[in-house]
Amino acid sequence: MKRTILPVAVALLSGLAAQTAQAAMDEPIQVIRPPQNINLGMVELGKKLYFDPRLSKSGFISCNSCHNLSMGGTDNIPTSIGDKWQQGPINAPTVLNSSLNVAQFWDGRAADLKEQAGGPIANPGEMAFSHTLAIDVLESIPGYVREFKQVFGSDKIDIDQVTNAIAEFEKTLVTPNSRFDQWLLGKKDALNATELAGYQLFKNSGCVACHNGEAVGGNSFQKMGVVEPYKASSPAEGRSAVTGKDADRFNFKVPTLRNVEMTYPYFHDGAANTLTEAVDIMGRLQLGKKFTKEENAQIVAFLKTLTGDQPSFTLPILPPSSDSTPRPQPFGK
Amino acid sequence: MKRTILPVAVALLSGLAAQTAQAAMDEPIQVIRPPQNINLGMVELGKKLYFDPRLSKSGFISCNSCHNLSMGGTDNIPTSIGDKWQQGPINAPTVLNSSLNVAQFWDGRAADLKEQAGGPIANPGEMAFSHTLAIDVLESIPGYVREFKQVFGSDKIDIDQVTNAIAEFEKTLVTPNSRFDQWLLGKKDALNATELAGYQLFKNSGCVACHNGEAVGGNSFQKMGVVEPYKASSPAEGRSAVTGKDADRFNFKVPTLRNVEMTYPYFHDGAANTLTEAVDIMGRLQLGKKFTKEENAQIVAFLKTLTGDQPSFTLPILPPSSDSTPRPQPFGK
Repeated sequence: MKRTILPVAVALLSGLAAQTAQAAMDEPIQVIRPPQNINLGMVELGKKLYFDPRLSKSGFISCNSCHNLSMGGTDNIPTSIGDKWQQGPINAPTVLNSSLNVAQFWDGRAADLKEQAGGPIANPGEMAFSHTLAIDVLESIPGYVREFKQVFGSDKIDIDQVTNAIAEFEKTLVTPNSRFDQWLLGKKDALNATELAGYQLFKNSGCVACHNGEAVGGNSFQKMGVVEPYKASSPAEGRSAVTGKDADRFNFKVPTLRNVEMTYPYFHDGAANTLTEAVDIMGRLQLGKKFTKEENAQIVAFLKTLTGDQPSFTLPILPPSSDSTPRPQPFGK
Repeated sequence: MKRTILPVAVALLSGLAAQTAQAAMDEPIQVIRPPQNINLGMVELGKKLYFDPRLSKSGFISCNSCHNLSMGGTDNIPTSIGDKWQQGPINAPTVLNSSLNVAQFWDGRAADLKEQAGGPIANPGEMAFSHTLAIDVLESIPGYVREFKQVFGSDKIDIDQVTNAIAEFEKTLVTPNSRFDQWLLGKKDALNATELAGYQLFKNSGCVACHNGEAVGGNSFQKMGVVEPYKASSPAEGRSAVTGKDADRFNFKVPTLRNVEMTYPYFHDGAANTLTEAVDIMGRLQLGKKFTKEENAQIVAFLKTLTGDQPSFTLPILPPSSDSTPRPQPFGK
């Protein structure tokens, strides 16, 4: 993907910077950008809500339960655990860098983070609450009432404010400064020979057709099982559930490969435990290519260079319930 | 509880400081002291372990699930949720200031924090793992192997190291600087008239017979239901389960009242939802005293001055599993 730059533009840049900029532009993966236009008050409120299990019926499950920010923004189990230990139908995608996704959920049924955030709260198999009940809880907690008023300027809390705040916090969960980004930015010793060989294979074998851009994925829907069918251990049918089109069956949002070392197990059904296994299956099913053991190891080595700085923040302290706060219902019907 | 101080000793102190020191010494509740003799490397390791759900069979439950440091070091539900959503037999006590307890668990069956920390990991109704399996997991994770070696100087990880590190982290979870402590230290406007009236009632009614010292409790076992029997919604029998003595039936460790505003619901069965209810029941059952509505409100106002600075630290990032790490078993047998 060579591009030419007008000599006059090049002349405006210093020599090395121009070469670096040119090199980075030539790559199908782009440096991840820090979040911009962030409302910090909303972030602090959203962070509390993200960690607050009182948004669930049981009082036990928060956003962070399944999108655990200590563990790559996921739960590291094949499919998640919901209210009363219900087994979820699909692997929890990482929340890290999710603001870069073309849409949210594996089937893209939510347009953005705000729309996504309301889903699990009201899903009977996940947090098993309702938006109305969640608002009742929040409005009974003086600390939240004050903070919502400060951020949104209103005496009433509504679900739009809740999901806006959670989404604003999630927008901050980008992971810059991976070794691969350092390399893209010109630090040529950031990657070793094996990792570079892996990246060449990743490009030349066709992986980048889907895994590209800032998030190394997340920007398109693609069929799982192009060359060979994928025998999923999950009933999820992907994009067709949203579009109703048979052609979209088993089309799933391409997952980001940022921090992929931390987001095991892999695929929408969480059936692949290791990167080695995932690379092997992807090669065969999507590309019709059987990577050798050495090639596989090189690609895995490259993938591990995509681990960036993890979100760093103080554990939020949640405002206590009041006497009138509806109590959680962890047991019983 | 007036004490006299030798005039010569008083002369050594400046006037106001002497009065303050004397006043604080006269009180049955003492200022909470910051943690001392702390091994910071062990704290950082213990913090990761405290947040790591890979110490449970399911990969979903960590120490922080039931002793949530965003919520006063407890889970704010009557009895905790264990592996496969099993209902626990007893209310999760707060981990905050637990280093000050005479012993751990409601029945004191663990001598100290280190002994306590091993319990839930291997309890089939809680984390449902075993110490051996937990060590297998930790030894398969390169990031942990390095950190244990750095902290303990050994190539092998063992459960003693694990529980030592968790206990060391827990020792840091003290909550200084409550308004009540500020008052004890001489800031006389730290409490308002209602709160002071509540404190006088708390002292004069006999509450301080059990709720005293640095932790305002935690330093003795006492019978639940002295004047009137307590009709518990839990089968727990308390201290007799440890001592085998019938006289110890329904003797429980007196809970700390530090941060009690955050550690609802109350009592070993979590049956009291509000401080108002808890104060009323304690007055009647333990002291044979029916507090008026105003007295109750004053005591509750005093209790809320015991909320201290909550632990403030960066959410730990856990080292990722390796290909050889045994995978969690959230579902199935």
